[in-house]
Amino acid sequence: MFILIAYDVQADRTEVYKKFLLRFLTHEQNSVFAGDLTESEYRKLRAGLSRIAIPEDRILQFKARNRHNIQAATLAKNAGNGALEDHALLHHSMNSTIV
Amino acid sequence: MFILIAYDVQADRTEVYKKFLLRFLTHEQNSVFAGDLTESEYRKLRAGLSRIAIPEDRILQFKARNRHNIQAATLAKNAGNGALEDHALLHHSMNSTIV
Repeated sequence: MFILIAYDVQADRTEVYKKFLLRFLTHEQNSVFAGDLTESEYRKLRAGLSRIAIPEDRILQFKARNRHNIQAATLAKNAGNGALEDHALLHHSMNSTIV
Repeated sequence: MFILIAYDVQADRTEVYKKFLLRFLTHEQNSVFAGDLTESEYRKLRAGLSRIAIPEDRILQFKARNRHNIQAATLAKNAGNGALEDHALLHHSMNSTIV
């Protein structure tokens, strides 16, 4: 399954999220992490988030059971021709390694 | 279709993105906007982003053709029982209004 997590937490709490989420997902941007997880990896992710989170934290989760239903890309302006180009985030099709 | 856009741009450029994206998507968090678009709304979104973007900007796009393949939720720690609860982002099932 494909998972995207974004968090909105106090500045002094971002590091604990970053360190934890890097074990499961790819750090795409600011507070946005995404990747492909197995069911058991997802359960570990959720158990860890439950330990880390405090009531003031705001966490967004987008989940797609079937990875193939999601196209993930970065959009970048081509300095030459001015077009806004899609660059597929192919690493989403590989399983993230749990360290 | 379901669209999520997250941007990573210079501080003085966030406002132009926020103002533009609010015409199409819901502001979920920080630089994360998401919602359901028709094909023609999506084309207008992409045309507008192409005008706004400069080569230094980094934009993430996640797209799912079939809205029902995506579960969107905020996760919040219940101050009482300590559980990390899912709160579905139901407004994703309504079409976003274009103003």
